[in-house]
Amino acid sequence: MRAVDLIRAKRDGHGLSRDAINAFVEGVTSGTWPDYQISALLMAVVWRGLSADETAWLTDAMVHSGARLRFDGLAHVPVDKHSTGGVGDKTSLVLAPLAAACGAPVPMMSGRALGHTGGTLDKLESIPGFRVDLDEAAIARALATVGCALVGQTDAIVPADRRLYALRDVTATVESVPLITASIMSKKIAEGIGGLMLDVKTGTGAFMKTEAEARRLAASLVATGTRAGVCTEAIITAMDAPLGSAVGNALEVVEAIETLKGRGPGDVTELSVRLAAGLLMLAGVEVTHAAADRRVRGALASGAGVETFARIIENQGGDRRVVDDYARLPQTADVELVGAPRGGYLERLDAEGVGRAAMALGAGRDRLEGAVDHAVGARVLARPGDAVRAGGPVVELRHRAGRGLAAAVALVREAIEVGDTAVPPRPLVLGTVDHPDRHP
Amino acid sequence: MRAVDLIRAKRDGHGLSRDAINAFVEGVTSGTWPDYQISALLMAVVWRGLSADETAWLTDAMVHSGARLRFDGLAHVPVDKHSTGGVGDKTSLVLAPLAAACGAPVPMMSGRALGHTGGTLDKLESIPGFRVDLDEAAIARALATVGCALVGQTDAIVPADRRLYALRDVTATVESVPLITASIMSKKIAEGIGGLMLDVKTGTGAFMKTEAEARRLAASLVATGTRAGVCTEAIITAMDAPLGSAVGNALEVVEAIETLKGRGPGDVTELSVRLAAGLLMLAGVEVTHAAADRRVRGALASGAGVETFARIIENQGGDRRVVDDYARLPQTADVELVGAPRGGYLERLDAEGVGRAAMALGAGRDRLEGAVDHAVGARVLARPGDAVRAGGPVVELRHRAGRGLAAAVALVREAIEVGDTAVPPRPLVLGTVDHPDRHP
Repeated sequence: MRAVDLIRAKRDGHGLSRDAINAFVEGVTSGTWPDYQISALLMAVVWRGLSADETAWLTDAMVHSGARLRFDGLAHVPVDKHSTGGVGDKTSLVLAPLAAACGAPVPMMSGRALGHTGGTLDKLESIPGFRVDLDEAAIARALATVGCALVGQTDAIVPADRRLYALRDVTATVESVPLITASIMSKKIAEGIGGLMLDVKTGTGAFMKTEAEARRLAASLVATGTRAGVCTEAIITAMDAPLGSAVGNALEVVEAIETLKGRGPGDVTELSVRLAAGLLMLAGVEVTHAAADRRVRGALASGAGVETFARIIENQGGDRRVVDDYARLPQTADVELVGAPRGGYLERLDAEGVGRAAMALGAGRDRLEGAVDHAVGARVLARPGDAVRAGGPVVELRHRAGRGLAAAVALVREAIEVGDTAVPPRPLVLGTVDHPDRHP
Repeated sequence: MRAVDLIRAKRDGHGLSRDAINAFVEGVTSGTWPDYQISALLMAVVWRGLSADETAWLTDAMVHSGARLRFDGLAHVPVDKHSTGGVGDKTSLVLAPLAAACGAPVPMMSGRALGHTGGTLDKLESIPGFRVDLDEAAIARALATVGCALVGQTDAIVPADRRLYALRDVTATVESVPLITASIMSKKIAEGIGGLMLDVKTGTGAFMKTEAEARRLAASLVATGTRAGVCTEAIITAMDAPLGSAVGNALEVVEAIETLKGRGPGDVTELSVRLAAGLLMLAGVEVTHAAADRRVRGALASGAGVETFARIIENQGGDRRVVDDYARLPQTADVELVGAPRGGYLERLDAEGVGRAAMALGAGRDRLEGAVDHAVGARVLARPGDAVRAGGPVVELRHRAGRGLAAAVALVREAIEVGDTAVPPRPLVLGTVDHPDRHP
């Protein structure tokens, strides 16, 4: 099967056989397909799409390009949650300890900040000493002891995706539902879980700008995960304004701990509880939504969640005292307030703008190689729908001696829109996408 | 302008600015664009197309990627003819000497055999001593003395196309009207001509399988050439069966000389005269079709055409005696006849099949690096519409000690279809595509 014939077939809108897709992934992994043929095929896939079969085959071939982890001897099914990327989304730091405290094994593999969206690994690394590079044995030990590991993807997992993603990034072939599906799901399937909660975000701050696009991606992810034997459920959530108040690594860790202590913003709390309850059901800890919800709220109220987070930190080499002493986290005293341009009601606080402002201050990065400043970021002081007075505080920027401040202020000003009437924001959770076979 | 942004714009169906296209071609020529970004953009162009403006800008940028030849001090406008590739098409060897004999300067740059189609350079090189690698000064001298040079493309011309074509060939991005247009027209514009006759072929043996596709390509070529100041006219011709009788390098040289002596097959003679007359008008030698046609037929009848061909051969280091002594050309005594499967009328003699058979015998090549055997090929003994008896001769194969013979025989058998009624083939010339501004 020559590469050029395979590219031609997809270019002309034909389906690719399972053998053809295996040959492609084998060529990507072994290096026998040159970059220029891979990128031509990727663009043809952006154009013509992949069927559900092709997407499942691609995902499966990518899983088999590397190691597949396996956690045996656990009382419940190991589960994970994945979000398509948002601004101020620190729910992983809340729901993973909560679900683990309730008995669900959570071997969570997360990513890094890129562009205007944050990354769980960077947030965790703002905790002094915290190590995210655990190997399979260390993850297994963590599951057996504290019930959860919060780690980065190991090199052994889905090497094909690393080459494909690097190429997609520079050839404008990222935006493709089947390619996104195969990239996300191959890594999740390879990490050895049996259940997956997906948080597919939509809105101005999300990768999927419209709800229809988000639903299409969610359906593809759920179908592909289910076919591969991973029970997968997705919720569609709004990402118009930042989630919660804090945007930036250490700032978000503080807000996550506050949430675990029952003092977090309503949106962060409710989304975390919802996702954690979903994980309990996928893990087989509970069988009804009501019972799962009750158990998660119990762990929140009892302090079991925050205690589990402290144990996770300790288990991964971090300073567990941060849970009670936020001064142990990186911080900066440099603060700049951005106020409302006029009095009225905050109509819009664009998540992408605030995310880009935090990135400009150093909280994020453009390229995965870049460093981040864990202390800097933004705190949202007024939410869409709130009344504001002229010059009244909307966003507080925490900067490092003015680095990137002018750009950040301009971005936040651009993100703010004040109107004359109070327009309530749309609900956070817009819907659920479940596999039709799960509840016959 | 980042490459990835340019790829994304085309992927999303947006037009590219002239600056963007210049940046792309500059990146191709200088090597600053990596192969994988070039191929991704090429696939996006196959998908989204290019507007007439974009096509003209791309062509112009490609012309400027290298040298543009210039022939001054000629009595008439230098002209050339280009065909999109056929089987048995030796008209260049006939019309170039004819047009030159009538006073049109013909600096003809041709290509090599590839796939099932023949190449003028390979045919010429079957003449002992004939050199096709003339530089600009030698071409200018040839125009001043014999009126014609039959050469290959010099390295100085359109270097961008060499890199682009090599990539298109292996990434299934050849089949795109704007990319074909820019590739063909940039090279023709850079060779310093003022007029161009195009022979756009359509049919089973052609690159463009349908007449509609051929007309679309012809319109794009004519519009792009005219915008660049090269008067361009196209005829659409049928390529269902081989043109004339001979298929293969030395065999076609013999048929071309026979045609110049007035003894050629009717289709080769008529197409050559038609194209040569077109060249005379584009060169400004004649102003009416009737006068141009008369003058070309005069050069044919007087022997001026065959004498000019002999002088061209001599001028380029070849043995001019081949014109009267075909035994001086490479030949083989090994002959195999392929007969009709049954009696009736020949309904089809598929040009591509016969071309592939000649290639299997060694007359052509798969890759431009491959060598060819100048002696081998095929002679068509019955034409579509002819009555044939069972086992009666249809194609004669000239092979080299059986090399590739089994495959060639199978291909020819597959190419032959005999029916019960005489179906006359469609006319050779199907239409003309001219620029609307030329005859207001």
